[in-house]
Amino acid sequence: MSIATIGWLGTGRMGTAIVNRLLDAERPVMVWNRTPAKTAPLAVRGAEVADSITTLAACDVVYVMVSGPADLEEVVLGEGGLLAGETRPEILVDCSTVSEEASARIRAAADEVGVGFLAAPVCGNPEVIADGQGSFIVSGPLKVFEQVRSDMELVAKTVVHVGEEEQARLVKLAHNLYLGMMLQSLVEVVTLAEKAGTSREAFLEFFNGSALTSPWIRRRSPELAAANWHLTFTNELLRKDFDLGLAAARKLEVPMPATSATYQLIQSAIGNGLRNEDFLSLYEQQARSAGLPEQSDRL
Amino acid sequence: MSIATIGWLGTGRMGTAIVNRLLDAERPVMVWNRTPAKTAPLAVRGAEVADSITTLAACDVVYVMVSGPADLEEVVLGEGGLLAGETRPEILVDCSTVSEEASARIRAAADEVGVGFLAAPVCGNPEVIADGQGSFIVSGPLKVFEQVRSDMELVAKTVVHVGEEEQARLVKLAHNLYLGMMLQSLVEVVTLAEKAGTSREAFLEFFNGSALTSPWIRRRSPELAAANWHLTFTNELLRKDFDLGLAAARKLEVPMPATSATYQLIQSAIGNGLRNEDFLSLYEQQARSAGLPEQSDRL
Amino acid sequence: MSIATIGWLGTGRMGTAIVNRLLDAERPVMVWNRTPAKTAPLAVRGAEVADSITTLAACDVVYVMVSGPADLEEVVLGEGGLLAGETRPEILVDCSTVSEEASARIRAAADEVGVGFLAAPVCGNPEVIADGQGSFIVSGPLKVFEQVRSDMELVAKTVVHVGEEEQARLVKLAHNLYLGMMLQSLVEVVTLAEKAGTSREAFLEFFNGSALTSPWIRRRSPELAAANWHLTFTNELLRKDFDLGLAAARKLEVPMPATSATYQLIQSAIGNGLRNEDFLSLYEQQARSAGLPEQSDRL
Amino acid sequence: MSIATIGWLGTGRMGTAIVNRLLDAERPVMVWNRTPAKTAPLAVRGAEVADSITTLAACDVVYVMVSGPADLEEVVLGEGGLLAGETRPEILVDCSTVSEEASARIRAAADEVGVGFLAAPVCGNPEVIADGQGSFIVSGPLKVFEQVRSDMELVAKTVVHVGEEEQARLVKLAHNLYLGMMLQSLVEVVTLAEKAGTSREAFLEFFNGSALTSPWIRRRSPELAAANWHLTFTNELLRKDFDLGLAAARKLEVPMPATSATYQLIQSAIGNGLRNEDFLSLYEQQARSAGLPEQSDRL
Repeated sequence: MSIATIGWLGTGRMGTAIVNRLLDAERPVMVWNRTPAKTAPLAVRGAEVADSITTLAACDVVYVMVSGPADLEEVVLGEGGLLAGETRPEILVDCSTVSEEASARIRAAADEVGVGFLAAPVCGNPEVIADGQGSFIVSGPLKVFEQVRSDMELVAKTVVHVGEEEQARLVKLAHNLYLGMMLQSLVEVVTLAEKAGTSREAFLEFFNGSALTSPWIRRRSPELAAANWHLTFTNELLRKDFDLGLAAARKLEVPMPATSATYQLIQSAIGNGLRNEDFLSLYEQQARSAGLPEQSDRL
Repeated sequence: MSIATIGWLGTGRMGTAIVNRLLDAERPVMVWNRTPAKTAPLAVRGAEVADSITTLAACDVVYVMVSGPADLEEVVLGEGGLLAGETRPEILVDCSTVSEEASARIRAAADEVGVGFLAAPVCGNPEVIADGQGSFIVSGPLKVFEQVRSDMELVAKTVVHVGEEEQARLVKLAHNLYLGMMLQSLVEVVTLAEKAGTSREAFLEFFNGSALTSPWIRRRSPELAAANWHLTFTNELLRKDFDLGLAAARKLEVPMPATSATYQLIQSAIGNGLRNEDFLSLYEQQARSAGLPEQSDRL
Repeated sequence: MSIATIGWLGTGRMGTAIVNRLLDAERPVMVWNRTPAKTAPLAVRGAEVADSITTLAACDVVYVMVSGPADLEEVVLGEGGLLAGETRPEILVDCSTVSEEASARIRAAADEVGVGFLAAPVCGNPEVIADGQGSFIVSGPLKVFEQVRSDMELVAKTVVHVGEEEQARLVKLAHNLYLGMMLQSLVEVVTLAEKAGTSREAFLEFFNGSALTSPWIRRRSPELAAANWHLTFTNELLRKDFDLGLAAARKLEVPMPATSATYQLIQSAIGNGLRNEDFLSLYEQQARSAGLPEQSDRL
Repeated sequence: MSIATIGWLGTGRMGTAIVNRLLDAERPVMVWNRTPAKTAPLAVRGAEVADSITTLAACDVVYVMVSGPADLEEVVLGEGGLLAGETRPEILVDCSTVSEEASARIRAAADEVGVGFLAAPVCGNPEVIADGQGSFIVSGPLKVFEQVRSDMELVAKTVVHVGEEEQARLVKLAHNLYLGMMLQSLVEVVTLAEKAGTSREAFLEFFNGSALTSPWIRRRSPELAAANWHLTFTNELLRKDFDLGLAAARKLEVPMPATSATYQLIQSAIGNGLRNEDFLSLYEQQARSAGLPEQSDRL
């Protein structure tokens, strides 16, 4: 099967950025959104707007990007949902962030009616997607993946098939576990250098010129140097990903000594009043514990 | 003062790579090496060869890159050393890897005779240097640094002044502490994904497309994916840097919870027989503890 | 109300030991057990044997000690259960090991029919109980507790009221978390002394004479000294209590840095083949990681 | 040889308590102290007072208990010291707290002049010693130990020979490492129970009735329950023992994962302002990190 028509359900900021990349590549896309106004900018650029999910379901493939498992189950399995009617897509791709369990329930329902299902969480924010620097992490039957791969590659630099089942969900969690550890590792060495008399700015300039840095660290270095950050992701949300990731590790019986050391530090930060701060505030906690003087502009 | 003549003491593989970059930029360099034969390739490319350290000492600036503190003290402070005669350079730059204490001793001796001293360890291997991707981490008086900065920038992409005293030594250790933590963090998430059914290769392909990866991880991913690595740096050597880095952290009273969790894992790896393996073998230890089946080509 | 008649449901080894203490004190006890033969030794000593749970339900207070939440719910809430008929005890005391959630469900059902409910897990094995050295950890309304306290004190040395709700369940888990940490702490210092040339036996002789030892450590020191232990509690079972205890800590937002370090070590021990060994085998793991020579009689 | 005369050098509070036990047992003791007035209470009870160290050196065995390695080296090796003259004891026993290195230096000097040397640090405070509940940890030649053992058993409940060399020093450090871990383990489970609604007092009452408690925990439970402690041993002093113990572990290549997790928490407590508090303040740090409300009487 070649994909003649692409459906997209959920045109929030991320969905819009992805559809724009498909339109840039002159692919035919039909969109639907609960709040119809949000589809207007895409319609201007040539996307067809479906009047209902039922109409959208006639596309060869439908991608869904909604805000959580409840919404996902409703638009897929609910009355008038993608799998509820006579007309169904050949392939259903879920790009939302949902648990392995929710993902497995959708897969079972899709299997039952002969629809190929892929779990395909996306890494990157809308700006990153617009630059073509995003990633698709995909799991589900390899044959199904092969059919949508070329479209995904129009959108994102990295498109990887990581397993035949729900593995994509865990891989995304693994990404976030690493993110927390990377930051904790960084703030330990930053405060060490700082207390020895090297400014954070100088240390980060060096670090960002080394083979150890990452694009994420580069991007946030100015904020860390200034001890003045804006909110992207709270300690409480980071803890949630650690909750899920460590629960998966437990189920799989994988010890995670460094991960759990970081997890406990995130929990301490929450207890010490940094719950709703951006997780760069792990620096704040570390600086206090190192006895560094409070910086007035830090919070 | 403008630097008219550059002296270089120690033309091993790293020293040769650095001098080559200076020669590429048509800077006049005089070299000296204990084993004279090693200077030949540089002489062919235009470097002057000094017949003694005393001759080298007449250069405006002399860089030293030797294998440890004993050699450093000998060529600088010993009989016929750089600071022992009537003729001395204006500036002495040490690019060796030595402790803060050894560095401070050299600085005190240089100060006494009015020679400006910079501690300037280098990050990168000879190939990285040849590509211009290396780093100089420099500490010592800012005014002295400003005089050599332009030459260093001919050699390396990153040239950072990190303090007025021995801070460069600690910053280099901080780099290596982070390296160990980065790897331990990676092997935990890799084994987690692996046990869920995602191959290391697929996971690393995804990871290397994300904003979290680093040039170091990219470079070593094929070996980690194949569970088959060559020796670059043993667990025992990595432990040595952790010994020194954690001793500095203790002296400065900086808690290092994630660092010390990794340190103990390196110690366990040594106890469990991985002492002389490349430190990528932290994966091996983690895989065993996760109950993953032994891979015949892994060791 | 004074307690005139005591009912006991569940006369396994622990239940029998407890009822024997009540009989020793000449308290009137009626017993019931699913396998009636198990009540015979108690009948010989003077216990009345109920022909059904319904008969038992006529006692002023009924204690239940069964093997898990499913059994508990059946004998209490199921058809013919303690709370199902017209005749119900004034007070219901559950001495089983069940989760906080199961405990809360029973409490809600008891409250609805006006029966006072106490969660009362017991610490100690049958021998310890027989010696009067056991403990009751009790939670539930204080007024209800006061009515049964004197009976409990006939059975156990320590009888403590730890809260008005399900706290007794968590206190029992906290006990087991401490047990795991105590052992890991001990094996670290034991191997340290051992590698320095002090035999485990000599170290433990010293330790057991100090103010740091505990009755548990004293009891198991001969086995640890001989590196030859019998099975009391596997690493897998210990991990289960850590699972539950750390889940409770997460819910309550209490960081547990030392606890989680031990938890990861238990997980590693399982991955390294010690799943079904007694948890004294944490020594085995530590000895291997310290590079101590394998002892032929150790496993 | 049977010990006819016992010499004791250093009659501070601990030394006095020990000599009193020897006098209670009608053993002949000659004492010397730098500040002579401190020997008076012992003289009243029958001890002979030496006019110089030289006189004391004529005893068959001389015990030394001074405040550190400098004092120890002076009274043993210095001019007029125990080993400096013609007359020397057969056996020298050092009960001070000094490092392995200092201990080894004294041993070498004693060996050279044919004096048997024992390292014999003492556990317990003066009250504990007076009650006969103290411990001697002894290392040195077994034959030498056998000669003094019966005298030591008059003083202390526990007298253990832990090796032929300096092992006694490490065993004492191991004791203190365990002490720190025991407390951190306790404060984690205490705060867990506390946040669930169980008072510290109730939890400790239960805990102290269990097989997990220790005499040390029992003794300090009232202070912990009241969150109001007096100073016995600061976090800074505890950190010093962890410094020494972990340095020994590193030298012996023994990983100490739980120990080092506690060490980092002690360091954090120091950075967070608890440097000079009694180490029971590890509770304070844990309570803050758990978000427990500050208690006005806690500090």
